Amino acid sequence: MKTGTVKGSVWSTKKVDGLMGLTLLSVETDTGKIVAVDLVGAGKDDRVLLTFGSAARVENPLLPVDAAIVGILDTLEAET
Amino acid sequence: MKTGTVKGSVWSTKKVDGLMGLTLLSVETDTGKIVAVDLVGAGKDDRVLLTFGSAARVENPLLPVDAAIVGILDTLEAET
Amino acid sequence: MKTGTVKGSVWSTKKVDGLMGLTLLSVETDTGKIVAVDLVGAGKDDRVLLTFGSAARVENPLLPVDAAIVGILDTLEAET
Amino acid sequence: MKTGTVKGSVWSTKKVDGLMGLTLLSVETDTGKIVAVDLVGAGKDDRVLLTFGSAARVENPLLPVDAAIVGILDTLEAET
Amino acid sequence: MKTGTVKGSVWSTKKVDGLMGLTLLSVETDTGKIVAVDLVGAGKDDRVLLTFGSAARVENPLLPVDAAIVGILDTLEAET
Repeated sequence: MKTGTVKGSVWSTKKVDGLMGLTLLSVETDTGKIVAVDLVGAGKDDRVLLTFGSAARVENPLLPVDAAIVGILDTLEAET
Repeated sequence: MKTGTVKGSVWSTKKVDGLMGLTLLSVETDTGKIVAVDLVGAGKDDRVLLTFGSAARVENPLLPVDAAIVGILDTLEAET
Repeated sequence: MKTGTVKGSVWSTKKVDGLMGLTLLSVETDTGKIVAVDLVGAGKDDRVLLTFGSAARVENPLLPVDAAIVGILDTLEAET
Repeated sequence: MKTGTVKGSVWSTKKVDGLMGLTLLSVETDTGKIVAVDLVGAGKDDRVLLTFGSAARVENPLLPVDAAIVGILDTLEAET
Repeated sequence: MKTGTVKGSVWSTKKVDGLMGLTLLSVETDTGKIVAVDLVGAGKDDRVLLTFGSAARVENPLLPVDAAIVGILDTLEAET
């Protein structure tokens, strides 16, 4: 997993059916910006935990997503 | 997922059967050019949403593709 | 797999159910910091062995994790 | 997927059984050289289309390969 | 796949059960050092062929490994 910071929303009207109803957020990571489905209700500037690949689909294997926000960080004890 | 910009088509006459009938587009991303199957009818210069790995095959697990265009971006609210 | 050094814990109160009860550690690798689930009881400054992707879920395919600490290194015979 | 240029063959006598009978080619890509199984009869200097990960195994899930040449490019309409 | 050069062994006494009995080697590649399970009996300084991700587990899906040495290179016809 990686940590990142939410920068804003990503809007797409013309998309595959599998993305309907999902919240897609733009997240800055140490290796660039990615787009992730939000599974925890994250907001702008939140520092979040991201999981990638099929791990992003363990709850719903049919979603066409390869990244998911799975947690909001509540401490920086480690400078993650 | 990542965002990118469609640069043009990729043509291959000699290919595996699994690619027959698919539209393959060259897409510029922040980490270089990739080739993705188009699932939404994207055109040149469109800014698109890309999904990678097995996520690109959720609708058809037998396609030999590792990247898919799953949406056309309609806003840059976030500078994604 | 890769080797890395544990830097500290990652705390998240608001997270998906699948992460409940897991120990998440921040690990420094040669390509940056990542977050991994700890499967062996690693501590700060331990040099560890990391596995990525679905390999991190072979013991529990339903965990939403893409990285796991699967060993603590006990020698540097090779400067790994 | 990515595009690349075939540079030559890769020979290995001592290998796992799953690689027996496969043609392995060295391919230059924009992110370095990789080795891919050839599924289309590509030759040296051919510009080819590569697919990675489990997508390289859709026709034979038991091959221990993570990259496959799935097409020979016949045009550079887009400077892919 | 990628090519690399074996640099030495990686030892871990405290590890997950799934790694018991496996030979883990440190391998230098063009993108850094990785650790791979040895499936062919490679030795120090051997130039080897590596496969990554689930391809490393086609013979045993329950191993928690994401990289495997699947061949020893016997020629450099192509400067792979």
